[in-house]
Amino acid sequence: MLILTINCGSSSLKYLLYDWDKKTSMASGIVERVTISDSFIKHTRIGTEEVKIERECPTHKEAMGLVMGVLTDKEVGVIEDLSEIDAVGHRVVHGGERFTSSVRIDKMVLETFKELYDLAPLHNPPNVMGIEAAMELLPDVPHIAVMDTAFHQTMPKESYIYAIPYQWYEDYMVRKYGFHGTSHLYVSYRAAVLLKKKIEDTNLITCHIGNGVSLTAIKNGKSYDHSMGFTPLEGLVMGTRSGDIDPAVVEYICNKENKNVSEVINSLNRKSGLLGISEKWTDRRDIEREMEGGDKRAELAFNKEVHRLKKYIGAYIAILGFVDAVVFTAGAGEKGPELREAVCSNMERLGLKLDRERNSKSRGKKESIISTDDSPIKLFVIPTNEEIVFVEDVVGILKGEYESPETFKYSFASPDYKAM
Amino acid sequence: MLILTINCGSSSLKYLLYDWDKKTSMASGIVERVTISDSFIKHTRIGTEEVKIERECPTHKEAMGLVMGVLTDKEVGVIEDLSEIDAVGHRVVHGGERFTSSVRIDKMVLETFKELYDLAPLHNPPNVMGIEAAMELLPDVPHIAVMDTAFHQTMPKESYIYAIPYQWYEDYMVRKYGFHGTSHLYVSYRAAVLLKKKIEDTNLITCHIGNGVSLTAIKNGKSYDHSMGFTPLEGLVMGTRSGDIDPAVVEYICNKENKNVSEVINSLNRKSGLLGISEKWTDRRDIEREMEGGDKRAELAFNKEVHRLKKYIGAYIAILGFVDAVVFTAGAGEKGPELREAVCSNMERLGLKLDRERNSKSRGKKESIISTDDSPIKLFVIPTNEEIVFVEDVVGILKGEYESPETFKYSFASPDYKAM
Repeated sequence: MLILTINCGSSSLKYLLYDWDKKTSMASGIVERVTISDSFIKHTRIGTEEVKIERECPTHKEAMGLVMGVLTDKEVGVIEDLSEIDAVGHRVVHGGERFTSSVRIDKMVLETFKELYDLAPLHNPPNVMGIEAAMELLPDVPHIAVMDTAFHQTMPKESYIYAIPYQWYEDYMVRKYGFHGTSHLYVSYRAAVLLKKKIEDTNLITCHIGNGVSLTAIKNGKSYDHSMGFTPLEGLVMGTRSGDIDPAVVEYICNKENKNVSEVINSLNRKSGLLGISEKWTDRRDIEREMEGGDKRAELAFNKEVHRLKKYIGAYIAILGFVDAVVFTAGAGEKGPELREAVCSNMERLGLKLDRERNSKSRGKKESIISTDDSPIKLFVIPTNEEIVFVEDVVGILKGEYESPETFKYSFASPDYKAM
Repeated sequence: MLILTINCGSSSLKYLLYDWDKKTSMASGIVERVTISDSFIKHTRIGTEEVKIERECPTHKEAMGLVMGVLTDKEVGVIEDLSEIDAVGHRVVHGGERFTSSVRIDKMVLETFKELYDLAPLHNPPNVMGIEAAMELLPDVPHIAVMDTAFHQTMPKESYIYAIPYQWYEDYMVRKYGFHGTSHLYVSYRAAVLLKKKIEDTNLITCHIGNGVSLTAIKNGKSYDHSMGFTPLEGLVMGTRSGDIDPAVVEYICNKENKNVSEVINSLNRKSGLLGISEKWTDRRDIEREMEGGDKRAELAFNKEVHRLKKYIGAYIAILGFVDAVVFTAGAGEKGPELREAVCSNMERLGLKLDRERNSKSRGKKESIISTDDSPIKLFVIPTNEEIVFVEDVVGILKGEYESPETFKYSFASPDYKAM
C-alpha cells in the first residue's frame, strides 16, 4: 500500500511517498515559491541525491502536477503510474471545534474547511487548494485530512477558554485551539517508550522549537494545555512571530503608525520574534553566531527566547504537578544544544538536571536522553516525524481501525519501532 | 508633619491624611462617581464612624475641594486649616522610562506626565488632574509623585522587551512597564522581615490579587519580571480585564463585529476577565457563592483564574531558580482562602505546601504564614499598604534621604515596624 502525504503552505508543497508494507519512504521533497514566481521542486528518491527542477507554479495545482510528474518520471521517479498510489493524507492546520480526529474528506468536510478560512487565513486556504488539486489528479483514491488541532481537543475548558466576553466564544468560536498537534503526538508516544511507561500514565512537556515554536503540557498522555492559541501567533518567541504581548500594543501601534489592525497583526506574525528584536535574523544559527561575535541585539533575542521558554516550562510543571520528562524536538529543539542548555540552566530545583556532555553531543540525528541519571524530570531530544502520523492515520482510517489520536495504536508507540 | 496622599482614578479620588510624628492615620476616604454625576464622599475620621456626603463633582477639582472641605470641617474634620498640611504625595500610574523613583513635582515633571498620556490613557489624565487641583488648593507645599512603574525599573531587558519590531520600542517606548509597584514593594519588604532575611538576599513571588491582578518575580529584593505589561491589561485574569490572549483575536473581533481596534481593546479592559466568562460577576465573593450554588460559568471563571495564577507562579519559580516565599496580598489575595487553596493545590513538587487550617483562618486582618512548617517555599498573606509607601517617599524626599525605592530605608523594612 503506497501512501502519499501532502503538506501545503502558503507558498510551498511538501510531500512524501511511503510504502506501508515495506515501512519505508520511497521519495520526498518540496515545491517552493508556489504562487510567487521562480518556483522549483527539490525532490529526493530515497537513497539517491536530491534533484532540483525549476518550473513555474502560479497555483498549488501546477505544484501538485509537478509532484505527480516527478514521482512517475522515468529518471527520478519511483512509480510507473499514479494509479499505484492507494491513498493521500493531507495536513490541515485548523480543524476548528468540529474535527477532533483525522477524517476522510468528502464534499461536506471540504465545505467545513472552507468555513474555517477566517480562523486560519494563512494556512487553511492553501491546505484546501492542495486537497482540491490532488483530488482532481487522483480522483479515485481516498483523501484523508489530518488536523494540527485534533490532538489538542482534549484540553480542559480552563485551558482553552479565554477570559474574554463569552459571546465571542459562542458566536465566533474564539478559543485556544493549539497547533503542531501531529508533532506533539509523535514525540509524546516516543517519550513514553523511552520512559518505559504507558502513555496514559505519562506527563510530559513537549517543546517543538522550529521556526514556529509551541509547547504542550501533556497529562496522562493527552494534551492538557498548549502555548499557541486561537492562531499560531500566541505563546513563545518564534522566528518572525511575537508570541505573547500586551494586546493593548495593537491599538497603540495602529494609532502611532496610522495602520489598520490587520497590518499590525501582520507585523506581529512576520516581522517580530527573533527577527523583530535582532532586526536581521530569524534563524537561531545566525543568532548564536552573531551573539558569539558580540552582537548585543542577537544576544537579547537569544536571551528573550530562553526567558520565555523557561517561563512556559515552569508554568506547565505548575499545572501538571508531576512531570516525567521534558522533550525537545524540531529544528532548534533537535539541533540546538546551546539553546537547550540555556533553557535548562538554574532549573535544578524544579527537577531539571541537564547533562552538559550528553546535551552537547545530541544534535538531532537520533533519540537521546540529555539529563543526568539522577534528574527527577528526564530530558529528551526526540526528532519529530509528522509524516509518519499522516501515513498511519490514513492507513488506520482505510482499515477502519482509527477512531481518534488518543485511542489509535500507532506503530511508533511500540518499543520495537525503529525511529528514523 | 502631616502628609496628605492622593490617588485619583478616572472617576474616584482616594485620600489619606497621615501624622508622621505620631505615625498614625488621621482621616481617610474616597470620593466616588467624580465626573459622572450623583457623586459623593465617604469620609472617616480615624476612630469614628464613616460619614457619607453627597455633592456633585463634575471634575476632580471639585472632588479635591470637597476633600479639603471635610478635612477642615468643624464636625467631621481633623485639622483647622489647610496650612497644617506639610506635603502631598500623589500616586501616578505611569512614569514611562524617565522616572525610576518618586520625584518632587515641578512644571517639567508635570509636562512629562502629560507626554505619557497615551501610554496610560485611562490613568495618567486623572492623576494629572488631581495634581493640578491639589497644587491650586495647596500652592505652598511640596507635591511629590509616586509612580506605580518605578519599582519595576530594575527588570532586565529580557523581561521588559517584547519580541516585536525593535523600532516600536525605540520610537514609541513600547515595552513592559509593570504596575502596582508600591504594593509589591511594601509586601516584599514585609516578607523579608517575616523571613528574617535581608531584602537583597530574598527571592519572592508577590501576588497582588484585587480587581486588578499582578504578580512580580522579585530577585534579590528587586523586581525581575512582572505580569502586567505595556498597560495593566496583560497577564492574569482580572475582574474585568482579559489578561493574556492571542493578539490575533483583536483583529478577528474587529472584523466579525465591525468594530475599531479601540472598541475591542476597551472590551478587553472592561467586559472581560471574570465578568467576561461569568457574564455577571466581577467580584470573587459573588463568583464563589454562585459556584457553590452550581453555576457552571462561575466555576469556569474561578478555574480559569486559578489555572492562570498557577502558571505564572510556576513561570516565576523557573526564572528565579530559587524562591523564599510566595506572598498573597490585596482583596482576594488577603481575604480569599478558597482561591489561595486552589492555586496552591498540587504544587508540592514545586515546593509549595499549604497548611489548610492556617490558610482558612487567614482573612487579611494581619500578616500570617499559611504554609506548613516544612514547606520549602513559604506562603504568606500580607495585607498591602500602598499609602504608607506614598507617605514615606514624601517624607524621605523632604528630608533629602530618598534616592530610589531600592535604596531607601523604609520604616516597614524593620522588624520593629507594627503592620496595621
